[in-house]
Amino acid sequence: MTDANYNRFAGQNVKRIEAISDGVFAVALTLLVLDIRVPVTEAIHSEGDLVHALCGLMPKFLSYFLSFMTLGIFWTGQSAQYYYIERSDRDLSWISLFFLLFVSLLPFSTAFLSAFLPYKFPVFVYWLNIFMLGFSLYIHWQYAYKKGFVNAPESERAAIGKAIKLRIIRAQTLYGCAALLCLVNSYLSIAMIILIQLNYALGLVSGREKNR
Amino acid sequence: MTDANYNRFAGQNVKRIEAISDGVFAVALTLLVLDIRVPVTEAIHSEGDLVHALCGLMPKFLSYFLSFMTLGIFWTGQSAQYYYIERSDRDLSWISLFFLLFVSLLPFSTAFLSAFLPYKFPVFVYWLNIFMLGFSLYIHWQYAYKKGFVNAPESERAAIGKAIKLRIIRAQTLYGCAALLCLVNSYLSIAMIILIQLNYALGLVSGREKNR
Amino acid sequence: MTDANYNRFAGQNVKRIEAISDGVFAVALTLLVLDIRVPVTEAIHSEGDLVHALCGLMPKFLSYFLSFMTLGIFWTGQSAQYYYIERSDRDLSWISLFFLLFVSLLPFSTAFLSAFLPYKFPVFVYWLNIFMLGFSLYIHWQYAYKKGFVNAPESERAAIGKAIKLRIIRAQTLYGCAALLCLVNSYLSIAMIILIQLNYALGLVSGREKNR
Amino acid sequence: MTDANYNRFAGQNVKRIEAISDGVFAVALTLLVLDIRVPVTEAIHSEGDLVHALCGLMPKFLSYFLSFMTLGIFWTGQSAQYYYIERSDRDLSWISLFFLLFVSLLPFSTAFLSAFLPYKFPVFVYWLNIFMLGFSLYIHWQYAYKKGFVNAPESERAAIGKAIKLRIIRAQTLYGCAALLCLVNSYLSIAMIILIQLNYALGLVSGREKNR
Repeated sequence: MTDANYNRFAGQNVKRIEAISDGVFAVALTLLVLDIRVPVTEAIHSEGDLVHALCGLMPKFLSYFLSFMTLGIFWTGQSAQYYYIERSDRDLSWISLFFLLFVSLLPFSTAFLSAFLPYKFPVFVYWLNIFMLGFSLYIHWQYAYKKGFVNAPESERAAIGKAIKLRIIRAQTLYGCAALLCLVNSYLSIAMIILIQLNYALGLVSGREKNR
Repeated sequence: MTDANYNRFAGQNVKRIEAISDGVFAVALTLLVLDIRVPVTEAIHSEGDLVHALCGLMPKFLSYFLSFMTLGIFWTGQSAQYYYIERSDRDLSWISLFFLLFVSLLPFSTAFLSAFLPYKFPVFVYWLNIFMLGFSLYIHWQYAYKKGFVNAPESERAAIGKAIKLRIIRAQTLYGCAALLCLVNSYLSIAMIILIQLNYALGLVSGREKNR
Repeated sequence: MTDANYNRFAGQNVKRIEAISDGVFAVALTLLVLDIRVPVTEAIHSEGDLVHALCGLMPKFLSYFLSFMTLGIFWTGQSAQYYYIERSDRDLSWISLFFLLFVSLLPFSTAFLSAFLPYKFPVFVYWLNIFMLGFSLYIHWQYAYKKGFVNAPESERAAIGKAIKLRIIRAQTLYGCAALLCLVNSYLSIAMIILIQLNYALGLVSGREKNR
Repeated sequence: MTDANYNRFAGQNVKRIEAISDGVFAVALTLLVLDIRVPVTEAIHSEGDLVHALCGLMPKFLSYFLSFMTLGIFWTGQSAQYYYIERSDRDLSWISLFFLLFVSLLPFSTAFLSAFLPYKFPVFVYWLNIFMLGFSLYIHWQYAYKKGFVNAPESERAAIGKAIKLRIIRAQTLYGCAALLCLVNSYLSIAMIILIQLNYALGLVSGREKNR
C-alpha cells in the first residue's frame, strides 16, 4: 500500500470514529432521561400532588444532571484528543470502541446509582465507570502519541502530550478521593463528584490556560 | 499554539458540536413516539374499538406534534446560529451541551404534559423547558458574538446579531404570555403555544424577510 | 448578505438536514426492534418451547421487516433528491422536518399493525403513514425545484424533475391499491404492500434505467 | 447524465450510507444496555444484597459485552470496506441496508441469548445473526468489487479483494465451529465465540499484517 493511500484511509477512519462516537454519546445523553418516569396517574388528585410527585423525582433529576455532565466532560476530552489526532489504525479504533463501551454503560450505572442512593456500592460502581472512561481515554492518547498519529508543531508536541495526560490523572485523582468519601457518607461522595464536574464544566480552577 | 492550528481546531470542534447536536435532536425527535403506546390487545373486539382506542390517544398525538415542532424550531434556531459561527472554544462547547440538556429533557416534559393535561403545573414545567431552550440559545449567541466567533461581513454583523437576539426575545415573550394563560385554562395555554409554534414553523407573521 | 455567503450557508444547511435525517432514520430503524419482545422466561421449559415462542413472534418479525423496507425506500428516495438539491432555505428545512415527523411515527404505526393484524383499521393507519411520507417527499421536491435549488445540467433538469415525481406518484398509486385490497382481506393487503416494496428494494420492474 | 455528475452523486451517496450506518451502529450499541435492568428496590436490604443482585446480572453483562464486540467487529469490517469503496449505486445502498437490518436485530438476538442461556436454540439464533452479518458484508464487497467501485492501485486491487473475502470466510468458519460446539454444551459455544471475537478485537492471531 502506498503512503498516500494509507494516509487517506486513516483520515477517513478518524472521521468514522468521530461519527460513531458522536452517535453513541448522543444516544446515551438522551437515554438517560428514560430513567425519569412520569408519575402514575392514579396517585394524582391535585396540582399539589403533581408538585409533590415531581419533587419525589429529584434524585432521578440529580443523577441525570450528574451523568449528563460526566458524558459532557468525556465527550469534550475525546474531542480535544481528536483535535490533534489525525490518523488512526485498527488498534486505536478498538481502543475507541472500548471507551464507547463505558460511555454506553453509563445510563445503567446512573440508574443503579439513583435507585439506591443511600448505599455505598452503587457509588463504587459509578466511580468505576468514570475511572474506566478516564483510563481508556488515557490509553487512547498514549497509543496515538506513541504511534505518531498526533499532529502538532514539533516544539509543542511534548507539552501538549503531557498536559492531556496530566489533566486525566488530576481529574481521576479527584474522582478517586470523592469515591473514598463514600466510606463516610455516600451523599457526601456524590456531592464531591458533582463539585469536581462543575469545576471542569465551568472551567473554574485547575488552569483553563494551561490545559485548554 | 500557532493561530493556523487554533483555527483548524476550532473549526473541527464546531463540526463535532453540530454532529452531537444533530444526534441528540434526532434521538429526542424519535423517542417522543415511545410515549404513544399501542392500545392493549384484550380491550379490542372490533374495528370500532380500534378507532375508539386510537382517538383516545389523541392527547398523546397532540403533545407529540407539539414537541416535534418545539424541537424543530430550536434545531432551526441553532442551525441558523451555526451558519454564522465558525469557531468555538471550550466554553461555547459547554453552553451547547447545556442547551442539549434541555433538548433531551423535552421527551420527559412532553410525557408529563400529556399524562396530566387538565392540570396547570405540567404546562408550567413545559414552558420552563421551552424557556431554558431559548435562554441557553440566547447565551450561546451572545457568547459567540462577543468572542468574535461570528463570521459575517462587517457591514451586516451588528444587524444579524440584533435580529437573532430579537427573534429569541420576541418568541419567548409570546411563550411567556401563553404560559400565563394557564391561569385561566391549561388547554387554552397549550392551544396558544401550538399557534405560536405553527406561526414560526410556517413562517407566517413576524417578518420572514427580516429574521431569515 | 453576499451571494457567496448565502451559497455557503445553504450548503451548510443541506448538510445538517441530511445529518438529522440520517439520525432520525437510524434511530427509527433500530427502535423498530424494541417492539419484538423476548418471550417470558416462565413459559419456557424446553428447546421446543423456545422454537415455538419464536415462531409466535413471526407477525412482529414480518412487520419489522416490512417497516425496515419502508424506511429504506424513503431514505433512498430522500437521498436521491439531495443528490440534486444543493441549496436550502427555511421552508425546505421545515418540509424536511414534516417528512421526518412521519418517519418517526412509523415505529408506532408498525407496532399498531403487528398488534392487530387481522383488523383493517391498522392497515389504513399504516397506509396513511406511507402516503404522508410520499406526499411530503413530493412537496419537498416540488418546492426545491421551483425555488431553483436543484443542480442539474440544463438539458436534463426537466427530465430528472419529471422522473422523480412520476416515481412517487406511481409508487403511491400502487400503495393505494394495496390499501384498498384491505376491503377484501387485510393479510392480502399487507402481502401486496410487501410485494411492492420488494419490487422497489430489489429494483425489479418499473424501469431501473429510467428512474435510477 | 454526464459522468462527472454521476461520480459526484455516487460520492455523496457513500457518505450518507456511512452516516446512516454509524447511526444504526451507535443506537444498537447503546440499546444493548437497556436489556440490563436495575434490580428491583424491594428486594434490596443491604450492601451485600446489592453486590449479590449485580452479580446476578452477570449473564446480561456477559452477553452485552459479547454483542458490543460483535458490533465492533462488523463496524470495523464495514469501515475497512468503505476505505476502498468510493462510489455507490442503488443496489449497493440496498445491500448496506440489508446489512443494517441484521445490525439492528442484534439487540434482540442478544436479549434472547441472555434470557435463555442454558438452551441451544438461542445460540443458534445468535450465530445466524452473526452469519447474516458476515454474509451481507461478503456480498457487499463482492458487488462493489465487480462494479468497479473499489478504488485501489491496480497492482494491489486483487490482493486487497482476496484478503477482505478471506477474512470474512475464515471468521465465519470459526463462528460456525463455535456454533456446532453447542451440540456439546451451549456455554462452551458462547465461550468459543467470545474467544474468537477477542482474537479479532485484539488482533492476536490470524495475521494482522496480512489482512490489516
